[in-house]
Amino acid sequence: MKNYVFGVDVGGTTVKIGLFDKEGKAIDKWEIPTRTANGGEAILPDIAKSIEDKMAEKNISKDDLIGVGLGAPGPVDDNGMIHKAVNLGWGEFSIKEKLESILGVQVEAGNDANVAALGEMWQGGGRGYKNVVAVTLGTGVGGGIIVDGQILSGTSGAAGEIGHIHLNDSELSVCGCGNRGCLEQYASATGVVRLAKRRLVADEKPSVLRDTELSAKSVFDAVKAGDEVAIDVAKEFGRCLGIGLAIVAAVMNPQIFVIGGGVSKAGPVLFDYIIPAYNNNVFPAARDIKFALAELGNDAGIYGAAKLVLDKAN
Amino acid sequence: MKNYVFGVDVGGTTVKIGLFDKEGKAIDKWEIPTRTANGGEAILPDIAKSIEDKMAEKNISKDDLIGVGLGAPGPVDDNGMIHKAVNLGWGEFSIKEKLESILGVQVEAGNDANVAALGEMWQGGGRGYKNVVAVTLGTGVGGGIIVDGQILSGTSGAAGEIGHIHLNDSELSVCGCGNRGCLEQYASATGVVRLAKRRLVADEKPSVLRDTELSAKSVFDAVKAGDEVAIDVAKEFGRCLGIGLAIVAAVMNPQIFVIGGGVSKAGPVLFDYIIPAYNNNVFPAARDIKFALAELGNDAGIYGAAKLVLDKAN
Repeated sequence: MKNYVFGVDVGGTTVKIGLFDKEGKAIDKWEIPTRTANGGEAILPDIAKSIEDKMAEKNISKDDLIGVGLGAPGPVDDNGMIHKAVNLGWGEFSIKEKLESILGVQVEAGNDANVAALGEMWQGGGRGYKNVVAVTLGTGVGGGIIVDGQILSGTSGAAGEIGHIHLNDSELSVCGCGNRGCLEQYASATGVVRLAKRRLVADEKPSVLRDTELSAKSVFDAVKAGDEVAIDVAKEFGRCLGIGLAIVAAVMNPQIFVIGGGVSKAGPVLFDYIIPAYNNNVFPAARDIKFALAELGNDAGIYGAAKLVLDKAN
Repeated sequence: MKNYVFGVDVGGTTVKIGLFDKEGKAIDKWEIPTRTANGGEAILPDIAKSIEDKMAEKNISKDDLIGVGLGAPGPVDDNGMIHKAVNLGWGEFSIKEKLESILGVQVEAGNDANVAALGEMWQGGGRGYKNVVAVTLGTGVGGGIIVDGQILSGTSGAAGEIGHIHLNDSELSVCGCGNRGCLEQYASATGVVRLAKRRLVADEKPSVLRDTELSAKSVFDAVKAGDEVAIDVAKEFGRCLGIGLAIVAAVMNPQIFVIGGGVSKAGPVLFDYIIPAYNNNVFPAARDIKFALAELGNDAGIYGAAKLVLDKAN
């Protein structure tokens, strides 16, 4: 009887691994270092060894195992082929085939942001929905799109790059992607700090932010304390993100947006600024849809990876 | 042996119907009037009668028939349920069940723009591709999104409403949807005329457009003749549409954009203005993808409707 599944989330410094039952209950989770030397050649063997050690520890045989799911930081197509993962030193190869050949069990792989979105749909803020857009407001703005319960990968595994929706023709700073005026430049943690700096030099209005180290957290703490300058920053953040998500809704028509990442730790106050801008700019049929906070934090990837292989299990 | 399929495209004034073989060859096509009186109650019976007459004429029995596909001007979900079609007088009901009960053969239904996109993928400008975004530049800007060969309907059948992507915060005119600054306000046939009027009043530069009735056709005819004012209009049209499609690519990552509708009759010159703006604003992984002109014109809907039922045939 196959009862267990492993979910693996490969990051640039650590690999998170979780052992789940097939209902999605986490039985164990742990981390191993990501060894990126020599084109990251040790990463998959290290993961396989760690999984085999855990199986021995828990007395789980291969016959008990449904498979292993894996999220990786790069474009991964629906066949488990990665096209490049700069942070890992990986070029183009089939993660699925390589790890299957080592472990001898079914492996499925996806892009980490997409896999995390699947995790939030399965056991997190998007529970109960099938058409989900997960938005990660971290150093950048990432996205994962779930349609009818399945990841939308896109042609080259680059669907859901909603941080690079073009919003502002007059932006002078360059985004990490090389363009100017991307959503990420306003709605990421660094984007919030940029907006705060711009607001602070616009006039001399008193603000607690003038004596605080600027961060997304300090800005939203000030918003909660009623600081008017911080509220201006939150309005501009919300305007940009609300318009960005309205655009996503015009294309995808999801049921729910699930907002995660460091900026989302500010909590429901974010929605006071995002939702009005969203409703003002979205196609009427997509107005008043649900917004929720992500619930799985850094574990979304291992949950989603587990779900990925559960869905595709033979 | 089942060899035939009917494709039906229901419009506000006429219903187009095509008879196809299963390879997509059109055997016959014709139109009947759309009788919208009494909540459009006669429309499906009229279609059924017309199909039965054609079957008698061509000596096709029900056993030869794979099914009937239908595109309707309103949001239709994946189960063939329409949620409202204002132009037809229709409320919410299952097109699939109703027409199946009259005809006694399998019926599948979809939104007309989405179905037309499927047609262009099957036998038109998107032939050979599976991830296609079809864009119709007509009175408005419509869109149909095909992912892995299938229509993306969205939660309430409203996916692909790319004409209502928000582009311009400072727009004063109101779009048909009630918002301001939608892509449709710049890239539709009426949008091109609006851009031309705005350009003409900006200064007194000579232009053939000053003595011409303004239309998308007259603007692009002038572009082809080298009229500098018309070229300015084309640049602004291309900038808006290029940014809009770059945004769609960030979300969906398609293989190809297929451009149809009245404005597309201007031909490949459109791409001279769309593609540079697209490449300047799109996420790098989605740069330099294919653009093609739609090939099926007003027949895209009947082709796509036929394909819809072929794909879902039991």
